[in-house]
Amino acid sequence: MTTAPDPTLPDQLRFDAAGLVCAIAQQHDTGEVLMVAWMNRDAVAETLATGQVCYWSRSRQALWRKGESSGQTQRLVAMRMDCDGDALLLLVEQTGVACHTGRRSCFYREARDGAWTEIAAPDVSPDVLYHRH
Amino acid sequence: MTTAPDPTLPDQLRFDAAGLVCAIAQQHDTGEVLMVAWMNRDAVAETLATGQVCYWSRSRQALWRKGESSGQTQRLVAMRMDCDGDALLLLVEQTGVACHTGRRSCFYREARDGAWTEIAAPDVSPDVLYHRH
Repeated sequence: MTTAPDPTLPDQLRFDAAGLVCAIAQQHDTGEVLMVAWMNRDAVAETLATGQVCYWSRSRQALWRKGESSGQTQRLVAMRMDCDGDALLLLVEQTGVACHTGRRSCFYREARDGAWTEIAAPDVSPDVLYHRH
Repeated sequence: MTTAPDPTLPDQLRFDAAGLVCAIAQQHDTGEVLMVAWMNRDAVAETLATGQVCYWSRSRQALWRKGESSGQTQRLVAMRMDCDGDALLLLVEQTGVACHTGRRSCFYREARDGAWTEIAAPDVSPDVLYHRH
């Protein structure tokens, strides 16, 4: 993580009408695409400042510090911007699993023979992740 | 590409108010994230039916058969859906470059030392890609 927390970096992004850009999280060493979520300006700035990935939750309309409930945090290794500035690629070190279903990646269903087919099982129960008893 | 062109597969996606889902293209063997774009129902169905990636162009409001102008097509190797059904991961075989700037990936700028820094040069001139003289 070589990025100094410069507050002007987010200014070069093209946020949409809702103030958001799409953000892809990819495990930095294996290349596995873990998830896609959204960031507003504050989420980008906080992520650059702390080195811990923070998204914007559209459902909760609040900053979403990844792993704050589950402990499954993402440490930022690098942040990249796409050619038209409305998407980010986050290279991360994922602690545990990225998906709320307990799977490593959210992309666990694949179109095969005309059906969406599960190609990955949970590594951990969501009940354990979210301390439900 | 083991997917039969079943027209009901897109029905399980959660399209947004504009009828779109976000789609990430990743080179299937190297893991490189190439680009992010959007698909509507017809683009998903066409991609599954033909095995050639087709997006929806928000700027042109039309189907965008990737490579139709530049020849830089994407052959679909696999299509995956995320946990909440509003994003797709396309594993592709990219012909040439994915980015309209002539770079392999659209994510060619990285936040380094407080600035967005180019980390990849064009492989080919856009003038060559788009036959401009």
